[in-house]
Amino acid sequence: MKKTILLLLVLCFSVNASFSQNNKVEIDKKVSELLAKMTLEEKVGQMTQMTVTNFEAKGQPGVFDMVKLKEAIQNYHIGSMLNVPNPGAPTIQRWKEVITTINNEANKTRLKIPVLYGIDAIHGSSYTAGATLFPQQIGIAATFNTEIAKRGSEISAYETRASSIPWVFSPDLDLPRNPSWSRMWESFGEDAYLSSQMGAAMVAGFEGNDVGSKYHVASCMKHFIGYGSTTTGKDRTPSIIPERVLRQFDLTIYQAAIKAGSKSIMISSGEINGTPVHASKHLVTDILKNELGFQGVVVTDWKDIIYLYTRHKVAENNRDAVRISVMAGIDMSMVPEDYTFYTDLLDLVNKGEVPMSRIDDAVARILRMKYEVNLFQNNIADLKDYPKFGSQEFIDVAYNAAAESITLLKNTAAVLPLNKSEKILVTGPTANSMKYLNGGWSYNWQGENSDKYAADKSTVLEALENKIGKQNVLYTAGADLEKENEDEIQKAVALAKDASKIILCLGEKNYTETPGDISNLYLSKSQINLALALSKLNKPIILVLNEGRPRIISDFEDKMNAVVQCYLPGNEGARALADILYGDVNPSGRIPYNYPRYTNSLEKYNRKYTESLGDEEQNNDAQYQKSYSPQYEFGTGLSYTTFEYSNLAIDKSEINHTDAITVTVDVKNTGKRAGKEAVLLYLSDKVASITPEVKALKRFEKINLEPNQTKTVTFTLNQKDLQFVGEDLKWVAENGTFNIQIGTQNKNFVLK
Amino acid sequence: MKKTILLLLVLCFSVNASFSQNNKVEIDKKVSELLAKMTLEEKVGQMTQMTVTNFEAKGQPGVFDMVKLKEAIQNYHIGSMLNVPNPGAPTIQRWKEVITTINNEANKTRLKIPVLYGIDAIHGSSYTAGATLFPQQIGIAATFNTEIAKRGSEISAYETRASSIPWVFSPDLDLPRNPSWSRMWESFGEDAYLSSQMGAAMVAGFEGNDVGSKYHVASCMKHFIGYGSTTTGKDRTPSIIPERVLRQFDLTIYQAAIKAGSKSIMISSGEINGTPVHASKHLVTDILKNELGFQGVVVTDWKDIIYLYTRHKVAENNRDAVRISVMAGIDMSMVPEDYTFYTDLLDLVNKGEVPMSRIDDAVARILRMKYEVNLFQNNIADLKDYPKFGSQEFIDVAYNAAAESITLLKNTAAVLPLNKSEKILVTGPTANSMKYLNGGWSYNWQGENSDKYAADKSTVLEALENKIGKQNVLYTAGADLEKENEDEIQKAVALAKDASKIILCLGEKNYTETPGDISNLYLSKSQINLALALSKLNKPIILVLNEGRPRIISDFEDKMNAVVQCYLPGNEGARALADILYGDVNPSGRIPYNYPRYTNSLEKYNRKYTESLGDEEQNNDAQYQKSYSPQYEFGTGLSYTTFEYSNLAIDKSEINHTDAITVTVDVKNTGKRAGKEAVLLYLSDKVASITPEVKALKRFEKINLEPNQTKTVTFTLNQKDLQFVGEDLKWVAENGTFNIQIGTQNKNFVLK
Repeated sequence: MKKTILLLLVLCFSVNASFSQNNKVEIDKKVSELLAKMTLEEKVGQMTQMTVTNFEAKGQPGVFDMVKLKEAIQNYHIGSMLNVPNPGAPTIQRWKEVITTINNEANKTRLKIPVLYGIDAIHGSSYTAGATLFPQQIGIAATFNTEIAKRGSEISAYETRASSIPWVFSPDLDLPRNPSWSRMWESFGEDAYLSSQMGAAMVAGFEGNDVGSKYHVASCMKHFIGYGSTTTGKDRTPSIIPERVLRQFDLTIYQAAIKAGSKSIMISSGEINGTPVHASKHLVTDILKNELGFQGVVVTDWKDIIYLYTRHKVAENNRDAVRISVMAGIDMSMVPEDYTFYTDLLDLVNKGEVPMSRIDDAVARILRMKYEVNLFQNNIADLKDYPKFGSQEFIDVAYNAAAESITLLKNTAAVLPLNKSEKILVTGPTANSMKYLNGGWSYNWQGENSDKYAADKSTVLEALENKIGKQNVLYTAGADLEKENEDEIQKAVALAKDASKIILCLGEKNYTETPGDISNLYLSKSQINLALALSKLNKPIILVLNEGRPRIISDFEDKMNAVVQCYLPGNEGARALADILYGDVNPSGRIPYNYPRYTNSLEKYNRKYTESLGDEEQNNDAQYQKSYSPQYEFGTGLSYTTFEYSNLAIDKSEINHTDAITVTVDVKNTGKRAGKEAVLLYLSDKVASITPEVKALKRFEKINLEPNQTKTVTFTLNQKDLQFVGEDLKWVAENGTFNIQIGTQNKNFVLK
Repeated sequence: MKKTILLLLVLCFSVNASFSQNNKVEIDKKVSELLAKMTLEEKVGQMTQMTVTNFEAKGQPGVFDMVKLKEAIQNYHIGSMLNVPNPGAPTIQRWKEVITTINNEANKTRLKIPVLYGIDAIHGSSYTAGATLFPQQIGIAATFNTEIAKRGSEISAYETRASSIPWVFSPDLDLPRNPSWSRMWESFGEDAYLSSQMGAAMVAGFEGNDVGSKYHVASCMKHFIGYGSTTTGKDRTPSIIPERVLRQFDLTIYQAAIKAGSKSIMISSGEINGTPVHASKHLVTDILKNELGFQGVVVTDWKDIIYLYTRHKVAENNRDAVRISVMAGIDMSMVPEDYTFYTDLLDLVNKGEVPMSRIDDAVARILRMKYEVNLFQNNIADLKDYPKFGSQEFIDVAYNAAAESITLLKNTAAVLPLNKSEKILVTGPTANSMKYLNGGWSYNWQGENSDKYAADKSTVLEALENKIGKQNVLYTAGADLEKENEDEIQKAVALAKDASKIILCLGEKNYTETPGDISNLYLSKSQINLALALSKLNKPIILVLNEGRPRIISDFEDKMNAVVQCYLPGNEGARALADILYGDVNPSGRIPYNYPRYTNSLEKYNRKYTESLGDEEQNNDAQYQKSYSPQYEFGTGLSYTTFEYSNLAIDKSEINHTDAITVTVDVKNTGKRAGKEAVLLYLSDKVASITPEVKALKRFEKINLEPNQTKTVTFTLNQKDLQFVGEDLKWVAENGTFNIQIGTQNKNFVLK
């Protein structure tokens, strides 16, 4: 029986493979034919991407100025558009009108090449009114469940195609090294393996087996590369990442997503070691296109070619910036507000400073993607094809994603789950707004209109009121997110006297990119003051964190009885939170980053041994301060039940340089509730010529266990898992002892 | 007349040059002859350095166990010792006994090779009782006066030779990139050019024209390389520094000191990009010995070969660690507590894993240095030769160094200088101890005994009492350095009511290395609370900072009327401070680092353009937080007079790739007091293929100006000053526009 299924699967794969092979040959043929017909102007136009707001009639938000639109498409032949029209978040009907208008204009051109529209669909089709909004990526990572990542992207693809858009700027594959970065929450956290698995799953969800179908879209990996690792944590400031480190960590995430088939990639706005990535032929052409064999479209980020001149100062002028970036390997410029890229590039080709071969490479990639997403046939949605848009089925998926992401970080004396009959005080500045649940990239860039667009969704306060009845819920804001206000605090203190327990909702405003820059990782003083004031009442406090990055809470964390990290859980997040707080859902999230305890102690979980001094380093001369003590370590996540790990076994205690090894472990639910458990496998290389990490995540699997149920989890490690990048920039596995850790269990094996 | 002097100088230099050439030939001959006589055991012994405390009799601090000493020197042939005997800081008489005892033992050996004793003479001969203690290096940097650096080292050399010691582990050439590093104050701050000038001056002071004379010592550059740049700021944790960056900044500091003749170098305890420097043949042999041509001794730091095994985990065991480090190019191991290095290395050579050529290279370097410092003739001080030890002449030099280092950072409404007739409150935890003025490396490692050894010196409180009479000075500690205590604060508040002004002395405990690790760059809460409480009294507050690194003060800085940074000014620092506060000395220090305003905003002054967003980056979508806003920028330093800059001129507005350019500027003292002014020349490269720094210090000169006096300052820039290290790791100057800034003046020139 099993053999038959396997055979069928193999057949299916073969059919698919041969289908896409044929499809590829066919598309390549069409691309060549079309390319051969094109003028230089038409080619350079294809490489030009502009924001839709550029074609807005003066003083009429969201209305096209048809003269401007015609000029762009007819005269400048622009190949791509992006962004959401003012005032943000059109309905699918409105999107259809917008895209139809653009499409009609393209149909009047000589070659009728459709305009490729790209959109920031960041946690669902987040620029479409009524779409299903999921937890932001950091929460998806916390689920440690790649099926959730994949299913969420499938729905996002469905709803984006329902918006007549075939291309999304997602997933985010950044590997943040500084937790104060304003886009921490757009990433999968600090671990490269977790990020690579989640990223590949999202690509699979977006693109499916046929990216040209009416339910799938082309994905765009971003931001290649090193974007999330700025020294100071400020957005779009310099990174320092040696190539060895870049290859061992950041690059692996892109490799996995490219392998999963992602059709395009967006370049990082940052500079690495003094070289802006948009100016780096080494990174974009030598490594991405040649070494990794990426055949899709390389698009810039917002205005980034111009910024080579105005901000990074590696170019003498705009024209020079265009030359540098196109020669580095850029295929499409998100210009996005003028025609300088078009005119400069035309001039550069005409004067021989950019060869036609480079232009043909770029345009072929763009045309190929247009064929792949089936844009020549199917660029306007038939709304009847999308009955599930914003449906309960999709909402339930978003709810489940939130429920599996929310992470219980502390639960002293089992204060959670709560008793529905107890009166509670809900307080804190994030308790009663959808803005903080959704964060940025929600309905518009900074996400400030979530309360309008998601008015039918529940805030934390509303979800709790729905859960236990308004009569059991007291509420006052207690504090502003930033402004200190002692009167507000005193209101909360007074109200708390009538409650048995306090649900304290703290966190951050909605933000992304530079507007989210901070200079101090501590949670704001207004909120710390509220927490300290409430903690003097000797009532149990459940701290609910609703934040894009780990704002430091060590001034009062010891006074909190429970801590629940929600991240940015999206439109269904508050319901999921309420169900967790009251025990209707057993929490199973694990935090995908080290939550720091101090501002100047931002060590990662996969630190080096010299970052966690052992007892041997103590001496009598002085008291050594412990270097490594995060508030919560990567992977922390409590449950209302208990799991016991046993029988860790490895099929070989010695392996050679071609062997794989199979690891098994038994996990038992020893508590009284069913629960999900993310089983994490860490590997430690005991000695290596590049100082080894203390441990590194190599595999994970999320399982569900009924009370008393035991499951055996099996992982296979291969040679790549034992390797690291040496000083010569090559991957190598060195002989010696490795240690595998799963839960409380660990075991050595030897590579010989 | 002038010509004659010049001629004489030229002659002197020639004579010296030929003398040292002859000397070199002679020494090389002696080294070869001696080396030829040595057994492998004697050679490996020479490479072994041990701590003197290892030979202490059990339970008798500071007393030799002669059996142990004999074993080390006779049986293990050890070539070097270091460290201070218990209980710390011997007198020169006691040092003479210690070194004589060791010397006598060496004289009993077959070849009578003297033992090379090395000492941490960090700010003066700081392990000798009664020696002259200068400001720590960060203060020396703040003087922007290389003569002070040189003269201080001359005195340190004199007093170290008076202690019968010929070798000092100084200067520190680290380039700290994280201000929370516990050894920030041992460096010259964040600028590579300033560090290179100061480092070279210190080498010249230590070694003089004849390092073998009884008044000079061999210096030891440390810690090669990248030690001060750990990601988290914790001591001895990993650094991430691409080689391009290492070459452009860190390496230049060592190049300058090597050019100045430094005889030895200590390797960094850190790891860079995953490679411990002690294991890096690329850094130690290829770059340091081969490329830079360094011919002196390469010594490890404390236990660092063993740490390759126990901490960094790049070696399987101790023996492997010895092999890796010796093959990387280490000449001498600061083992320092056992004979594992000796026995392991012997075995490695015997088994052919380390070639004799490597051993001979190491031993030749060590013997050469022993000859150069004239150890075979002159290894015990004749105390009659050192009449100036601890003399008033030397004390005055230390006082002047402190007076030129102390930096006036803020002086609202000219609250300083103070009036001697006014009653003041002196308060704060650093006001009344010598420990905080001296910091670590004072009498012993952590410097906790400064109050005993420097009992005759003035604390800040004592200096102020001496200055204006005890009757005008109220005092209470006000706060502990760490422990919060509201009662203490209230005492200070109560006492303040009787004072006109408050001198608030805040800062840090004495520390160095790992015991100085911190996790939060804010000044301690106990001190912030004191400052905030006092600031409510509406009395002028003069904040006196006494700290090794810039602890963040932005919670209360706006409430301080004046801010004076003392750094760690040494034994004479409080007198200098008092003279500055009362106007008897006009302050002239400039801060040699960016003093941060926020914990997560640690930008350097020579940041990239993308770190300081201009107005062009603002848009209407959101309020952008300014990225770059240090509390005080590098180079800040106020005076009690005013200086006016004018007539900035460059001799050429266009240059080619061989031209030098001469820059002149007029500086006038436009105030009513004489004053010293450090004139700083910054250069900006407007466009470059590696993103240019906003500005970089290229020259400085400290001048003295009487009221109304004008001086013309002349600087010459050469091609090297226009260069940076490109992606190919080579220095390059690219055509284009450069801008020179001096004071308020600036001017462009073009490289063609």
